[in-house]
Amino acid sequence: MENTTDVNLDALFLGPKSENEDFFLKNLTKMFNQHSQWRKNFHPEDGDVILNDTISSQDFINTQNKTENILEELSSKLRSNMMPWHSMRYIGHMNTDTLMPSLLGYFAAMLYNGNNCAYEGAPATTILEGEVGEDFCTLMGINPQTGWGHISADGTTANLEALWYARNLKSIPLALKEVSPELVSGKSEWELLNMSVDEILDLLEKNPKKLDKIKSNSARAVSSIIPKLGKLLVPQTKHYSWLKAADILGIGSDNLIEVPVDNHFRMDITALENIINNCIKNQVPILGLVGVVGSTEEGAVDYIDKIVALKDKFSKQGINFYFHVDAAFGAYARSIFLDENFNFIKESDLKEKFKEHNIFQNPDDVDWPSSSIYNAFKSMDKADSITIDPHKMGYVPYAAGGICIKDKRMKDCISYFANYVFEKGMDIPVLLGAFTLEGSKAGASAAAVWAAHKVLPLNITGYGKLIGSSIEGAHNIYNRIESQKTFEVRGKNLVVHALVNPDFNMVDFAFNIEGNTDLKLMNELNHRFYEEASFCTKLFTNDFITSHTVFDYVDYGDSLVNFVNKFNISKDEWDKVHQVSVLRATAMNPFFADRETFNTYNEKISEAIVNDLKLVLSDLDIK
Amino acid sequence: MENTTDVNLDALFLGPKSENEDFFLKNLTKMFNQHSQWRKNFHPEDGDVILNDTISSQDFINTQNKTENILEELSSKLRSNMMPWHSMRYIGHMNTDTLMPSLLGYFAAMLYNGNNCAYEGAPATTILEGEVGEDFCTLMGINPQTGWGHISADGTTANLEALWYARNLKSIPLALKEVSPELVSGKSEWELLNMSVDEILDLLEKNPKKLDKIKSNSARAVSSIIPKLGKLLVPQTKHYSWLKAADILGIGSDNLIEVPVDNHFRMDITALENIINNCIKNQVPILGLVGVVGSTEEGAVDYIDKIVALKDKFSKQGINFYFHVDAAFGAYARSIFLDENFNFIKESDLKEKFKEHNIFQNPDDVDWPSSSIYNAFKSMDKADSITIDPHKMGYVPYAAGGICIKDKRMKDCISYFANYVFEKGMDIPVLLGAFTLEGSKAGASAAAVWAAHKVLPLNITGYGKLIGSSIEGAHNIYNRIESQKTFEVRGKNLVVHALVNPDFNMVDFAFNIEGNTDLKLMNELNHRFYEEASFCTKLFTNDFITSHTVFDYVDYGDSLVNFVNKFNISKDEWDKVHQVSVLRATAMNPFFADRETFNTYNEKISEAIVNDLKLVLSDLDIK
Repeated sequence: MENTTDVNLDALFLGPKSENEDFFLKNLTKMFNQHSQWRKNFHPEDGDVILNDTISSQDFINTQNKTENILEELSSKLRSNMMPWHSMRYIGHMNTDTLMPSLLGYFAAMLYNGNNCAYEGAPATTILEGEVGEDFCTLMGINPQTGWGHISADGTTANLEALWYARNLKSIPLALKEVSPELVSGKSEWELLNMSVDEILDLLEKNPKKLDKIKSNSARAVSSIIPKLGKLLVPQTKHYSWLKAADILGIGSDNLIEVPVDNHFRMDITALENIINNCIKNQVPILGLVGVVGSTEEGAVDYIDKIVALKDKFSKQGINFYFHVDAAFGAYARSIFLDENFNFIKESDLKEKFKEHNIFQNPDDVDWPSSSIYNAFKSMDKADSITIDPHKMGYVPYAAGGICIKDKRMKDCISYFANYVFEKGMDIPVLLGAFTLEGSKAGASAAAVWAAHKVLPLNITGYGKLIGSSIEGAHNIYNRIESQKTFEVRGKNLVVHALVNPDFNMVDFAFNIEGNTDLKLMNELNHRFYEEASFCTKLFTNDFITSHTVFDYVDYGDSLVNFVNKFNISKDEWDKVHQVSVLRATAMNPFFADRETFNTYNEKISEAIVNDLKLVLSDLDIK
Repeated sequence: MENTTDVNLDALFLGPKSENEDFFLKNLTKMFNQHSQWRKNFHPEDGDVILNDTISSQDFINTQNKTENILEELSSKLRSNMMPWHSMRYIGHMNTDTLMPSLLGYFAAMLYNGNNCAYEGAPATTILEGEVGEDFCTLMGINPQTGWGHISADGTTANLEALWYARNLKSIPLALKEVSPELVSGKSEWELLNMSVDEILDLLEKNPKKLDKIKSNSARAVSSIIPKLGKLLVPQTKHYSWLKAADILGIGSDNLIEVPVDNHFRMDITALENIINNCIKNQVPILGLVGVVGSTEEGAVDYIDKIVALKDKFSKQGINFYFHVDAAFGAYARSIFLDENFNFIKESDLKEKFKEHNIFQNPDDVDWPSSSIYNAFKSMDKADSITIDPHKMGYVPYAAGGICIKDKRMKDCISYFANYVFEKGMDIPVLLGAFTLEGSKAGASAAAVWAAHKVLPLNITGYGKLIGSSIEGAHNIYNRIESQKTFEVRGKNLVVHALVNPDFNMVDFAFNIEGNTDLKLMNELNHRFYEEASFCTKLFTNDFITSHTVFDYVDYGDSLVNFVNKFNISKDEWDKVHQVSVLRATAMNPFFADRETFNTYNEKISEAIVNDLKLVLSDLDIK
């Protein structure tokens, strides 16, 4: 029986066929009118500035007409050439319909055009961003009193900011050695470069008067310190923003070590341990380590718990490094594990809780989460910082990335002002931009995320249900692919397989012609299929739209051998081609959880797939 | 006589009293309905997914009610605590009403939620961003065929990106020396570090096969190169994002040299030349130089023409550096100098052209531009890159920063992919995020800027008129302050003076009690005044709202002595306090150009000022 205080997901979206258009328009108009009347009522004694004589003049009308013509042109361009994320026929990138409260919240706040860079620029929305930051902490199991979070432009800038924290923080001990050697007396450079985040922050906190001097001897000021800081370890599945980040932060891509992944595309813990040991052996410090929760191409979830255990083990040996979790994609999924009071649910209670909140409509068909996934999410609270993108699994419109940090004392390492500059007893910083990578930013983004979090609490009663529906949708797709096995097209059998049982809500898959052992041909087939099932053909008349990716030996080593083997492609053939092209379907659309809806669209999409494959086979001239 | 093809500014804004509310609501509804019907008509044969049975269920209604409650709560927070930028009573930060085409364009595109990181994520709005990038180039006098531009999260990230270009580019010669010494044979390290941007890009272009290897030996990969690259020169008036940028890019704030400014708060060219000569004498390379067009605190415009001349002079001596113009604030003002065909208008024709397009309503009262300003704007096309913020003088809602570069070959220095990855003959990059600092970004921002540029061409017929009205408003305020001289408050005379005759549209000013020679007291007076005339008191009932800033000896040296002298504050007193607190009024509001409107509100605001000063004097216990 459904808990009646839980959200009803159908009421949250405009809908694939704009089913909730009346509700949307009603509230859109209301938000506008309330703003409009606010303008009139700010000093109601002030008269109109734009006068009726002007309004009836010809050039006023001309300008209005011009505006309307441009808006019509824009609308036409959008309708003819934007991706129909909202549709049941779109299963590709991590996109689908966005939440009505967020769209309406964004619009409402945009009219006031607040700038959350400074409190003065947006008193109301700056406070909302503060609340969102606390929500991020709570979601991650971090105490909002001692942690901190904020909205960023996107996941890339959040990752950049995390590495900025790591770099500046890890350089502090070398600065201490310069400024106050007595505070780190007896420590070798190796030991200084291996101090823990806590140790460093404690030292800074205890010496507030020396803070500025220490900072001005750290990496922020002294370029030559950076090459000493060592290596940044990232999994092979890392987003390319980590390459950018290492470049931009002056760490250099040469100092990036890519840790191999296993058959589930999760960081290989043994390989990680070997790499760390090797660094120690060569007295190469480790600046930081990045774990991924929801990899961009596979939705894979790294073994965060095992990484934390390894980190603790090395810490006992005096080896410490910064630990960031890039959960741009996966972070919101932690809400499914939080009960009504935001406590992490015991693994043994999980099924019962899911049932109570109707998380899955057909629980027996969703074999999720495995203990690996459960433990990974549970341990995220041990990270020093976490990237969280509301514009991905938060179902909030672009642009809204985010970051939270476990220990807000870290802010001192990147800020250009004293940690809190107060004006008249305010309890939030006057200049948020002094503690973030970006400066000016839309207060409307904060309003959009805030409204979503208020309607859907970040636990099993709110976002948990939404994420659950997405995961169920993904499993419906995965189960279907694995049971379907083949499509018959023009007398040929086309085999289909999924990459892995999804860790999250993304299903990668590929086709091959039964009997074909030529990987290049298989790749061509899948790439051509993608072209048919994407923006490359006419968007608005397309029957099924998905996305694609390419796995390359350079990035992934031999992790793909298992997968190509399923298609009768040999290891030898893999060694020749070293690349496999796959389709990539993120099941963000919550409506795929309903079995009847799923079946209806599975039929339509299967038909579209067969039609596309027909064209592809004919193009490839396969008889 | 007004040119009738020019825009009518009154038709472009919702208006201080929401005078254009009907037009706004009509088009808002239209944009929504067109999107809504698009959803229905993408496969009209697909039925509704959200069914009437659900819609009439109790928990659906509960969720709708919850959404409406949250939106009401949001609207109430916004109305009670956001800044009334739209009002004639607000003259502070660089904010006012934003353009209706942009607000409506943003909303229309937000419904489609495109992600301009990749073409696939937003086919239509990615193209619009390409067009906006071309507009940026045209505005700056850069050939859009050989230059490039894009929208960024804000001015800070644009500045970061510019410094990223500078750093990676200037490191290329050292990489060449490693990879292909024959290409730079005979050059000393000093000469390598002094190669010009053109020379470097030509060498890269001629050796495409070596590009990847060269890049992987440049600053992006090799951390230890960065400390060799030298100094970054910025004016004292620089935005604090330049401190952030030097920190983040690993250049280090130690390598930042602040060039003194003159009495106009423009970079002192003699001081600049001395600094450069000093660097040369000590064989310290100069990585880059930043000029500012529209400083954040004063609206000052650096002598870009003189900087360019100096740069050319040093270039002849074999000394070259990267040159960026931070015109986040001022860039759009270049449109006032461009004729209908986007040619830079001759100085001798300017007055006539202004008259023809009715740029100023009372031209005799607007002594603008001086030749210094004119020449500065003219020479901006010589910069290697320029920061341009649509969300400032573009009158576009947040978040929309921007950057353009003179030579698009520079993109190779920061990208992680071949310059153009093409899919099916497309002529724009598949992955815009590979050539920008940010990754995911709102396609809606591009739509908002695009719509503004389409309604208001970036020349004297469009933006030129809007910027003109802002400049006239600023001069109206400046003239009024300078003719007013004193306010009588509780039997005291309060002297008022403006900082300088504004280079652009910002008027800084301060009060002092006639006869007072105590700078600390004067500062207290102005700071307390600010508290009365700001968010610190009840926003919605405030009669006049402005912003403030503090000029400090640490940042500005003795540049403020002239100003405090106007108030009878001696140099000795300045030496004791070394800080002056001022009010800061940006006249972005276009309606202050109309003399009648200005007079009406001048009266209301003067009254508010007197009332605020009364409270302040009473608080300070001045009898």
